[in-house]
Amino acid sequence: MTSAETIQLGDYLFTRLLQLGVNSVFGVPGDYNLRLLDHVEPSGLHWVGNCNELNAAYAADGYARINGLSAIVTTFGVGELSAANGIAGAYAERSAVVHIVGTPPRPLQSSRALMHHTFSDGEYRRFAAMAIHITAAQMNVTDAMSAPDKIDWILQQALIHCRPVYLEIPDDMSETLVSAANLNTPIRIPTAPSAAHESKVITQILNRLYSAQRPLILVDGESRALGILDQLDQLIQTSNWPTWTTVYGKGLVNEHHPNVYGLYAAAYGDKPSQEYFESADLILTFGPHYSDTNTYFWTTVPKPAAAIQFKDSTIQIEDTIYRDISPSTVLTQILQTLDTTRLVQARGPAKPEPASTSNIQDSDIIAQHNFYPLLNPLFKDGDIILTETGTAAYGGRTFKLPPQSRLFGAVTWLSIGFMLPATLGAALAKRELNQPTGTKNQTVLIIGDGSLQMTAQEISVMIKKKLDILIFIVNNEGYTIERVIHGRNQGYNDVPFWRHTQALNYFGADDEQVKNSTFQAWTCGELKEILKMERVHSGSGVRIVEVFMEREDVQGPLLYLLNKQKAEEREQLQQLQK
Amino acid sequence: MTSAETIQLGDYLFTRLLQLGVNSVFGVPGDYNLRLLDHVEPSGLHWVGNCNELNAAYAADGYARINGLSAIVTTFGVGELSAANGIAGAYAERSAVVHIVGTPPRPLQSSRALMHHTFSDGEYRRFAAMAIHITAAQMNVTDAMSAPDKIDWILQQALIHCRPVYLEIPDDMSETLVSAANLNTPIRIPTAPSAAHESKVITQILNRLYSAQRPLILVDGESRALGILDQLDQLIQTSNWPTWTTVYGKGLVNEHHPNVYGLYAAAYGDKPSQEYFESADLILTFGPHYSDTNTYFWTTVPKPAAAIQFKDSTIQIEDTIYRDISPSTVLTQILQTLDTTRLVQARGPAKPEPASTSNIQDSDIIAQHNFYPLLNPLFKDGDIILTETGTAAYGGRTFKLPPQSRLFGAVTWLSIGFMLPATLGAALAKRELNQPTGTKNQTVLIIGDGSLQMTAQEISVMIKKKLDILIFIVNNEGYTIERVIHGRNQGYNDVPFWRHTQALNYFGADDEQVKNSTFQAWTCGELKEILKMERVHSGSGVRIVEVFMEREDVQGPLLYLLNKQKAEEREQLQQLQK
Repeated sequence: MTSAETIQLGDYLFTRLLQLGVNSVFGVPGDYNLRLLDHVEPSGLHWVGNCNELNAAYAADGYARINGLSAIVTTFGVGELSAANGIAGAYAERSAVVHIVGTPPRPLQSSRALMHHTFSDGEYRRFAAMAIHITAAQMNVTDAMSAPDKIDWILQQALIHCRPVYLEIPDDMSETLVSAANLNTPIRIPTAPSAAHESKVITQILNRLYSAQRPLILVDGESRALGILDQLDQLIQTSNWPTWTTVYGKGLVNEHHPNVYGLYAAAYGDKPSQEYFESADLILTFGPHYSDTNTYFWTTVPKPAAAIQFKDSTIQIEDTIYRDISPSTVLTQILQTLDTTRLVQARGPAKPEPASTSNIQDSDIIAQHNFYPLLNPLFKDGDIILTETGTAAYGGRTFKLPPQSRLFGAVTWLSIGFMLPATLGAALAKRELNQPTGTKNQTVLIIGDGSLQMTAQEISVMIKKKLDILIFIVNNEGYTIERVIHGRNQGYNDVPFWRHTQALNYFGADDEQVKNSTFQAWTCGELKEILKMERVHSGSGVRIVEVFMEREDVQGPLLYLLNKQKAEEREQLQQLQK
Repeated sequence: MTSAETIQLGDYLFTRLLQLGVNSVFGVPGDYNLRLLDHVEPSGLHWVGNCNELNAAYAADGYARINGLSAIVTTFGVGELSAANGIAGAYAERSAVVHIVGTPPRPLQSSRALMHHTFSDGEYRRFAAMAIHITAAQMNVTDAMSAPDKIDWILQQALIHCRPVYLEIPDDMSETLVSAANLNTPIRIPTAPSAAHESKVITQILNRLYSAQRPLILVDGESRALGILDQLDQLIQTSNWPTWTTVYGKGLVNEHHPNVYGLYAAAYGDKPSQEYFESADLILTFGPHYSDTNTYFWTTVPKPAAAIQFKDSTIQIEDTIYRDISPSTVLTQILQTLDTTRLVQARGPAKPEPASTSNIQDSDIIAQHNFYPLLNPLFKDGDIILTETGTAAYGGRTFKLPPQSRLFGAVTWLSIGFMLPATLGAALAKRELNQPTGTKNQTVLIIGDGSLQMTAQEISVMIKKKLDILIFIVNNEGYTIERVIHGRNQGYNDVPFWRHTQALNYFGADDEQVKNSTFQAWTCGELKEILKMERVHSGSGVRIVEVFMEREDVQGPLLYLLNKQKAEEREQLQQLQK
C-alpha cells in the first residue's frame, strides 16, 4: 500500500478497530450514524445492535474487559447521553471503550442549523463538553487530511489509559476519502522511555525483595490495565510467596497455585490471613485501587512502610513516588535479574477451610450462605462469572475460581443494571477469542431481581446472538442491598413483581428453548437437581434459573450493616418506651 | 408558623414540591438518596419507583408536561448520569423537571474520600459540571442556613424557565433542621415588571391587528411554557381568525373551534392552507420553536414581514426584537383593549376533508394510511394521546383531537424510548388532576416495536400503579423511520424478535388482565373489532394491542425520504449496468 492510496473514512476507522482485535461493534442506529454503520460489516466487523444505548455501553465495557478494546456507536445527543453512565463506569473501572458518536453533517453544524437531537439553539458542542468529564481523551474528526492521524491518536489513547475515549464523526464524512497509508503501521502502546531513576528503583526493589522476611503479593484490579498479568503469574510462581487479591483483582490470578490465598478481606476475612498481612514487612502491590468498596472501607490498604506499589507510569516505594516509569518494564527486568535463591521461603498462614456443602440439607431453603458454595463446582476452566452489585457480588467474593476464568464483581462504579449487558459483551468477546481453538465456555451471570429490571431487555440480544449464557436471578423481592444500608421496611426498596419464567418467551427465544431453559428453585435440593442437568451446566443458548431468597438475607459486611440498622431501630423503640 | 419553627430539610423540600402541585415523585433508590427518600411519603407525596433512571426521567418529563412541574430523585454518579438523556430532552422540549440528586455525605466529599459511585480520585464536582449543560439552573445545598432559600430559588427557576433544574442534597442533610418560615409564602413565578416599551409594543400590535386583511394565528409548542394557553383560546374565539398549530403546538388548541384548521404543514399539507399562509399579511405566532422536525424543514416558519412572534420575555415584530417584556401580560392587555369590531372578518381557506374510513375494507391489511383514521374515533374529551418518534408521530399529526385532550409527538429531541415512560408519567399526572372531579380518562400510547424495546420494562410500573393505559404497538420489524432515512435493507435497522403478547404476563399483571388485555390485528377488520370492545376503549389497567404493518410502510414526509432513497438505489444500479 502506498501513501497515494485512499480509503473511505468509515472503512478506515473500522479497519483500524479490526486490526486492534475488535470484532464486534455495539450500539444503536440513529439519524446521524446510519452512513457510518454502512461501513461496519463491509470492514469485517459484526454489528451487535443493542436495545438501547446504556445497554450498549455496558456491553461494550464487558467486551473490552475480556478483549482489551471495544467500540460503541451512538447518535448525537439522544444516543450518546443515554450511554453516559456506561461510559463513566468504563472510566471508573478501566475499560478501553471507544465511544464513536455520529454527529450532524458539517454544513448543518457550521450554519448552526436548528436540527433535531439538539436544543434547537444552534449549539453543537454541548454534549462533547460533557464527554470530557467521563472519557480519557476526545477527538472531533472534521477534515480529511487530519482524519487518519486523529483516529489513530484517539485509539491509542484508549489503549494507553485503558479507559473510554470519545470520537465524533460528522454524518457527511463516512464516505470521505482519506489516506490509507497509516494502515500499514499497527497502532501500539508506545514503549515508555527508560527513566533516569529506573535502575535505582529496580535496585531498591530487589534489595527489598532479598531482605524481606514476611513478604506477600497483593494483586489489585488495575493490574489488568497495566498489562502485567503474565508477569504477575510468573512472579507468583517463581517467588512462591503468599498471594492475595483484592475484590477488583479477584479473577486475575490463578487461585489454584498453592501459594494463592484468594481474596484478602482484613477483619471481614480469616484471622490468620489478617495477622500475616498486618505484620508483613513487604507488600508488593500491583494495580492498587483504593475505593471504599474495593478495600473493605480502606482496611485492606497496605501500610506504606511495607508497601511497594506498581501504578500507572509510577512506582511508589514506601512514601516515595517515582513517576514516568513503566511498571511493566520494571517488573520484567526484576523477573529477569531475580536471584530466587536469595528470597525467603515465606510460609504463609494456614489456609482457611473451603466452604463445605456437605452439611446442606435438601430441604434447606436457599440462602446466601449455601447458594454460592452449591454453585461453585459449576464453573469450569475459562468460564466467565459475573456477579452483579448487591448480594450477588458479595457471594462472588467467596468463589474459588477455576484457572483462566474471569470474575466481574462490584468494584467502585456499582451501577446496578450493568452486569446483564456486560454479560452479553463478555460472552461475545470470549466466543470470538475461543474461535481459533473451538473451545466452548459458559458465561454465568448472578443477578438480583432489582438490578435485572434495569436492563432486562438485553436478554433478547443474547438470544439473537445465540450466546451460551446461564443466568441466575436471585429473587429476594427488591433492592436487598439498599434495604440493609437503609430503609429495610421502606416501600422505595420494593420493585414491581415480574414473572421471570416468561423472560425467554417474551424476549423471543425459539419454542424449544422456551420449553426447557427456565428453572425455579426454593430449596437447596431443587437447586442441586437443576445444577446437575446437562442443559444447565453445559447447555447452549440462554438459560435462566430463578432462585428465591428471603428479603433481608445477606452475608459478609452487609450483615454488619443490617445488624447496625436493626440496633438503631431497637434504640428508637426503646426511646419511645421511656 | 413563626420563623423560629424548624423542619427537617427533606420535609422542607417535599413540602415545597407538594405546595407547587407535585403529588408523585419519580426515581430509583440508591446509596446516597435513601435518607432523602424517607421524607417523600411522610410529606404527603407518592413514591413511584421506576425500573431505571432514564425511564424515571422520561416519566417525570411526561408528568411535568401535564402537571406543570415534576420531580425525580436519583443517586450520585450512576443514577444521575443514567437520567441525563431524559433531562436533556426535558430541556429541549421545555418540561419543568426538578432533578434531585442525593450526593455523598459532606464529610466524605470534603475529605475527598475514594467512595463508590465516583472515579475513586477524590473529585466530586464532575457530574454537577456535566449537569450545567442540560439544566436551566443548578444548586448544591451544603448548609442549613441557606438551604430553604436555595431550594426555593431552584424550584422557582424550574417554573420560570419551564425547563429542568439540578439540585444536589448531600446524604447527611436530609434530617438537618432548617427554618420553616418560607413555607408560609408560596413560590410563584415573579410578575415581570412593565418594560418602558410595553405600551408602544401593544399599540403597534393593535394597529397591526386592525389593519390586517389576511391574518392568521399560529400556535407553536412553547406557548405551553409561556403559560398563555387560556388567553390563546380566548383570542382564537374572539377574533375568529384562521388558526393553525405546529407539530409541537398540536393538542394545545381546541381543534373543534370552527376557525381552527389543525396542523400547518406547508407543502406537506393541503394546498389552500399553504396559499392562505403564504399570502397572509399578519401571522400572530405564539411560542415559536423552529427545529427542522417541527417546521417541515423550516417551510412553516412565518416570513418576518408578516410575523409578530411571542417568545420568552420577548416579542418580535417583523425584524425588531423587544426584550424584557412579558408575552402573557401583553396578550392579556391586548385582549382587554381589543375592539373586535375593527378586526377583519377573515375568511380562511376551505377546510380539507377529514380522512374517511368508509372506503377501508375489513380485509385490508393495516397500514399507516388506514390505521390512524380508524383509531381517531377512540379518543374522548380529556384523553392524552402519545405518539412515539417514528411512524407513530407522523400518524399522530393526522388526528383530529377532542377538546381538552393532549397530544405528545415528535418535536425536536426525538429520543426513541421516551414515549413509553412519558405515558406512565402523563397518565399519573392526569389521574391526580382528575381526582377532585372523579373524571376518568384514557391515556393512549402508539409506539413502534423498535422504540418499545428501549424502555419496555416501565410497563411493569404502569401495572403496579394500576394506570388506565392503552398501548398500540406498531410491529413493523425494526426501526422503520431509520430505514426510510438510510439503509432500508441494512441489518442494523433490525431489532430482536419479541413476543409482545407476553408482555403483561412477564411484567406481572394479574391473571385476569393477562387473559383479556392483549390483542393482535393484521387486518383492518380485526382492528375494528378490537376497537369496539369496551375492554379496549373504556377499560381499566394496561391493555396492549399489537398491530402488524409492513417494514417500509410510511406516510407524509417519510414517504418522500423513502422514495428519494429508492431513486438513489436505482441510480446506483444503473451506474453498475453501464
